[in-house]
Amino acid sequence: MSKKEIRIGLVGYGFMGRTHTNAYKRVGDFFPELKFIPKLQAVCARNEERVKAFADQWGYASVETDWRKLVERDDIDAIDICTPNNMHAEIAIAAAQAGKMVLCEKPLARSVAEAQPMVDAIEKAGVPNTVYFNYRRIPAVTLAKQLIDSNKLGKIFHFRSNFLQDWTISPELPQGGEGLWRLDNDAAGSGVTGDLLAHCIDTAMWLNGGIKDVSAMTETFIKERVHTATGEKQQVGIDDACLFHCHFENGSLGLFESTRYARGHKALFTFEINGEHASIKWNLHDLSRLAYFDHRDASIERGWRSIHVTDGDQPYMDKWWVPGLSIGYEHSFVHQVADFFKNLEEGKPCSPTFKEAHQTQKVCEAVLESAKSKSWKNTHVEW
Amino acid sequence: MSKKEIRIGLVGYGFMGRTHTNAYKRVGDFFPELKFIPKLQAVCARNEERVKAFADQWGYASVETDWRKLVERDDIDAIDICTPNNMHAEIAIAAAQAGKMVLCEKPLARSVAEAQPMVDAIEKAGVPNTVYFNYRRIPAVTLAKQLIDSNKLGKIFHFRSNFLQDWTISPELPQGGEGLWRLDNDAAGSGVTGDLLAHCIDTAMWLNGGIKDVSAMTETFIKERVHTATGEKQQVGIDDACLFHCHFENGSLGLFESTRYARGHKALFTFEINGEHASIKWNLHDLSRLAYFDHRDASIERGWRSIHVTDGDQPYMDKWWVPGLSIGYEHSFVHQVADFFKNLEEGKPCSPTFKEAHQTQKVCEAVLESAKSKSWKNTHVEW
Amino acid sequence: MSKKEIRIGLVGYGFMGRTHTNAYKRVGDFFPELKFIPKLQAVCARNEERVKAFADQWGYASVETDWRKLVERDDIDAIDICTPNNMHAEIAIAAAQAGKMVLCEKPLARSVAEAQPMVDAIEKAGVPNTVYFNYRRIPAVTLAKQLIDSNKLGKIFHFRSNFLQDWTISPELPQGGEGLWRLDNDAAGSGVTGDLLAHCIDTAMWLNGGIKDVSAMTETFIKERVHTATGEKQQVGIDDACLFHCHFENGSLGLFESTRYARGHKALFTFEINGEHASIKWNLHDLSRLAYFDHRDASIERGWRSIHVTDGDQPYMDKWWVPGLSIGYEHSFVHQVADFFKNLEEGKPCSPTFKEAHQTQKVCEAVLESAKSKSWKNTHVEW
Amino acid sequence: MSKKEIRIGLVGYGFMGRTHTNAYKRVGDFFPELKFIPKLQAVCARNEERVKAFADQWGYASVETDWRKLVERDDIDAIDICTPNNMHAEIAIAAAQAGKMVLCEKPLARSVAEAQPMVDAIEKAGVPNTVYFNYRRIPAVTLAKQLIDSNKLGKIFHFRSNFLQDWTISPELPQGGEGLWRLDNDAAGSGVTGDLLAHCIDTAMWLNGGIKDVSAMTETFIKERVHTATGEKQQVGIDDACLFHCHFENGSLGLFESTRYARGHKALFTFEINGEHASIKWNLHDLSRLAYFDHRDASIERGWRSIHVTDGDQPYMDKWWVPGLSIGYEHSFVHQVADFFKNLEEGKPCSPTFKEAHQTQKVCEAVLESAKSKSWKNTHVEW
Repeated sequence: MSKKEIRIGLVGYGFMGRTHTNAYKRVGDFFPELKFIPKLQAVCARNEERVKAFADQWGYASVETDWRKLVERDDIDAIDICTPNNMHAEIAIAAAQAGKMVLCEKPLARSVAEAQPMVDAIEKAGVPNTVYFNYRRIPAVTLAKQLIDSNKLGKIFHFRSNFLQDWTISPELPQGGEGLWRLDNDAAGSGVTGDLLAHCIDTAMWLNGGIKDVSAMTETFIKERVHTATGEKQQVGIDDACLFHCHFENGSLGLFESTRYARGHKALFTFEINGEHASIKWNLHDLSRLAYFDHRDASIERGWRSIHVTDGDQPYMDKWWVPGLSIGYEHSFVHQVADFFKNLEEGKPCSPTFKEAHQTQKVCEAVLESAKSKSWKNTHVEW
Repeated sequence: MSKKEIRIGLVGYGFMGRTHTNAYKRVGDFFPELKFIPKLQAVCARNEERVKAFADQWGYASVETDWRKLVERDDIDAIDICTPNNMHAEIAIAAAQAGKMVLCEKPLARSVAEAQPMVDAIEKAGVPNTVYFNYRRIPAVTLAKQLIDSNKLGKIFHFRSNFLQDWTISPELPQGGEGLWRLDNDAAGSGVTGDLLAHCIDTAMWLNGGIKDVSAMTETFIKERVHTATGEKQQVGIDDACLFHCHFENGSLGLFESTRYARGHKALFTFEINGEHASIKWNLHDLSRLAYFDHRDASIERGWRSIHVTDGDQPYMDKWWVPGLSIGYEHSFVHQVADFFKNLEEGKPCSPTFKEAHQTQKVCEAVLESAKSKSWKNTHVEW
Repeated sequence: MSKKEIRIGLVGYGFMGRTHTNAYKRVGDFFPELKFIPKLQAVCARNEERVKAFADQWGYASVETDWRKLVERDDIDAIDICTPNNMHAEIAIAAAQAGKMVLCEKPLARSVAEAQPMVDAIEKAGVPNTVYFNYRRIPAVTLAKQLIDSNKLGKIFHFRSNFLQDWTISPELPQGGEGLWRLDNDAAGSGVTGDLLAHCIDTAMWLNGGIKDVSAMTETFIKERVHTATGEKQQVGIDDACLFHCHFENGSLGLFESTRYARGHKALFTFEINGEHASIKWNLHDLSRLAYFDHRDASIERGWRSIHVTDGDQPYMDKWWVPGLSIGYEHSFVHQVADFFKNLEEGKPCSPTFKEAHQTQKVCEAVLESAKSKSWKNTHVEW
Repeated sequence: MSKKEIRIGLVGYGFMGRTHTNAYKRVGDFFPELKFIPKLQAVCARNEERVKAFADQWGYASVETDWRKLVERDDIDAIDICTPNNMHAEIAIAAAQAGKMVLCEKPLARSVAEAQPMVDAIEKAGVPNTVYFNYRRIPAVTLAKQLIDSNKLGKIFHFRSNFLQDWTISPELPQGGEGLWRLDNDAAGSGVTGDLLAHCIDTAMWLNGGIKDVSAMTETFIKERVHTATGEKQQVGIDDACLFHCHFENGSLGLFESTRYARGHKALFTFEINGEHASIKWNLHDLSRLAYFDHRDASIERGWRSIHVTDGDQPYMDKWWVPGLSIGYEHSFVHQVADFFKNLEEGKPCSPTFKEAHQTQKVCEAVLESAKSKSWKNTHVEW
């Protein structure tokens, strides 16, 4: 079977550059039925030496140091944006205008206002696009979606989710620079809200529908950190922690929390959803397990089931090994890439699109505004 | 050793009447060093037949059907109030005025205003008193307090707690009447806020200090239920669910949730506290275990420890069996009774006193007001 | 309702003396329907001062220092044997001959030969009797029995069980004397085999039927310990660890292990049973939970269920609190006492009887003989 | 940096052919420092159509249908054997004689006798070699090795391990043929002993030293299955379950069990090791977690630690993502390939070598002989 190559131009070679690249390299091995197949055509970053080293290591055919040149190249079909958040908009808009497919790391942008022209450009260009809210495609999370969609839970009462980390507790940690731009509000646009809660919100709305209004609080525990750009102590602009409750459109209540000051948790993304008949729980630290409670089980035998999501009839798992053998974090990106290409074949959008990711952006922004104003805010989400 | 008997007059023979009575009957066996020992002198309830049956079963020496008579009896040293919440104030005030010791089931009252004269009467009479926030005295919870007090955690960033149940999901359940007065706002004063969140708040402030201000939301999922008193559908006045975030006085952030609509959870009271150096987690369904993470452990060996709190050097556990053998829910009441009597010996107050329980009442009320007004509320707590 | 008092004469006031006494004191409160009710008539032990203190603390009406006198007393209906194992036979036989009911702590005796005349005497006298293999009556274990008996599991393939402790790792621990007679082979008859594996074996045969033959190994890690009687180092006669595999009569395979050298486990009694359709797991450290896997659950939703055994329709739990609130170790004794009295009312034996406990003794002995001879041994069990 | 390509010739394209191939394709991306790098030169299997499809999917440069031709090719540096067990010896010996490096899937062979000439040929040829006991290189397992080697545990008392599956419970499953050769004794040499216990034994001896003698039992629950080669019911020659206990050379006791009839367990490989000062537990279903109990922790804070092995200072984890983000089963093969190449650079053997795998074979064989003869057997292991 001859496959059509989609020539990828990647911008950024950080943590996300690696996860996306790995996904492109593996998707063909495990999804052999795909008619489209990515080709690592070029990677772009400002530091020439480093970008060449990255290209060497991962097998990109060429490098660029100016993303505008990358976008202009005829031999690039798709632009993948793995830069700090402050660069997303400009690149995405240019890429769309150049007629490229656009794949963008989350969050879509630093603000609703910044994201709007991105969505407009994408829609106007009509190019295939997706935003890497990768956690949807962890098999256990996808299984949760299946169970909810098959109405196993009945009427929903509660959704709660948090994303807990502990890596910024030390005041010695600077803001800005490689790996640390997430602490610099100019680069990131927000702290845990855009970085972590955005995942919780995307998953929540995917599973439980739109969020109507929110009431939030944020905190910046460490007020000043040295900025790597200046070497001087500067005020920290990001939110170190963010908590909010909300109404979903279906009448259920949401409770969300994120922080980088929860000692003992590295990347503990969790969610739980409680319905009339059943409930579901999941967490990223034990990502192959889905907890499921079904009240319809016989009374004396009822209990939370720990579903080890490794069987061939569970989402994506026919692609991998045999029952009982788990996959990891990185596979969620492989699944998203596979779905992107499969949708491309079928002429369908690959969710979450820029438009959908914009709705998550709206919730993030309402959350930050609510915290600032100490009042409830409507989200204006269209779900 | 001759012991002095404290003659107990119990009001109410429901679920809490049983737990308190059991505590009185067991405390002498397991705390033989106590100089005071309870005597089951009288139990009081309106239904004569039932109160006699209860007295027979548990060994109360006499019965009353009018609590005022009980309070007036010379042969009663202590009044224990296990009635629905709407009766707490009147009985407690009368008992204090009669010079009795007063032990009261939580929550103290239906409101801050109702609680204030109770505290005043108790303080004026100077009688020994305590409020049964029993969960403090589950050994694992007491151990958490020890670890926090010995400053193992360092600066605190987060406290989160919830209390999840699922027993009122059916709309067929009536409000009012035996066992169901908790669904009747007149009797209970609130729904999950006073019944469940009050526990979370008491534990939270005990472990982490005062709560300054709160922002809350509540929901009543089932708007009308048949009232057992009238046989007619009436509006439901209680909160079925309540969520809030808050600031503690020490600068940490709190997140609280309670509901009776979380399918799969019978009585899942949980808390977690995150400090600079360590974190602690606990839940009532696995009440003998305390989870503890210490960042000072060697890097490659760090992990959440599951401490099985059954050893003789852990709180209260020298009184019971041998390492590895667990105790249960009811023992928390035995411990509170033991501490009450021990403090009595030593002329000390037994925390939580009425005064302290009043602070928890203030938070509950601020929470309900915040939800109603959709705004932040100060708690006016003195901790 | 007038109740008939069964006047208890307890021999021994150690750990087991406490658990049995507590059971007698509580059973009436929680099982009010019983027509028989225990009365703490006398406690017997050689040390007069201590036995008086115990009687005072727990409320025994009288004391004896010679068990023969206790057995002869007319005002005693039932003898409860909580002595070291080497005293079981003599006391039980005398008690039976005196026409007393006999309740005996496990193991029945130190050997099959020692146990046989006990069974004979009991049978000849026709007195009500039971042996305290208390773990059968932990609600989660009883629920396991219900599930197995209702044929939820289908054909059984495997049963595995262990009992792991870590309290004798130090070579400084002496053998003999109070609390340490379990390390003295003369008093105990064996080490972990009679003390711990006997529980595993009793539970196993109760749940899965008779054990046919065994192949075992034992080890004594610490060969010499100071004996408290002599103050001198003496050879250790007990088994510190014992492992065996076996055939059950139903064709399933058994795997058993016990040790006091498993660092990190205080009293970790576990069992698991695997059947064609379902499996069950349980452990004593989390005694309120039963793990249950049912292959008949829909394929994508299958998982081990963690059943929190605290609901009123689960075994014994209607007697205690409300759903979600757990009981502990001591309650298993209350249940056995309640069942003993209920059976007494109905004129039925209370399992495990002396005769049944003798079968467990046979397995223990076959295990020890197998280890000694390094060969398979038949058990001669009649189940 | 220019890298030297090691041209791989793979024999067999089943489950293991996939895991090895994936490892070769990924190792360069994640271990960029390696000087040797695998090249997918040829894959060999009898079915031409299928082997071509496999080569297409995974990117092998060429195919063969006769393994002898593959072994003779000059453009092949290393032969990787992923065939059923009955082919291992012949291919390995020929490959060694042809001077190829040899990588072989476990178990080494069907018997000690069959394995001996393999080891001889490898040793005589002096070619680099390794056997894929991949589980050693799951980071949590490697961390266990580090903790043991740093003497954290002190004197070892117990090692227990099992490998539980449930995929052959149906009597409808045939023996022989693709994916089912493991049920055919001619192809496999044994049942769970060579397939599953071999993993337990390899890990056990790696962590805890040599096994001296064993006492075992086996069972074949389903006596006859249709053979796919003949379409007829034939006697089943494999062991469906195998249990054994043993002495390690260090004086500790071992307990092992494997079965394919443990309903609810897909691939539950577990081990636990108990030492004087500390204990360790692990299982394959939660492969990123290592449980560790350290008795030196302060008494009241002691507990089993659940170490989430995802940090950069834990084995292999600097190669992958960021703390908290887990990897999966397949990565253990990537690690073994990386170690093979690193050792190649350094001129060192890559454990387990053929010689070491032969020792595991000896234990397997002693186990099967013990079960057959119902007696203890020495293993003759040299560790």
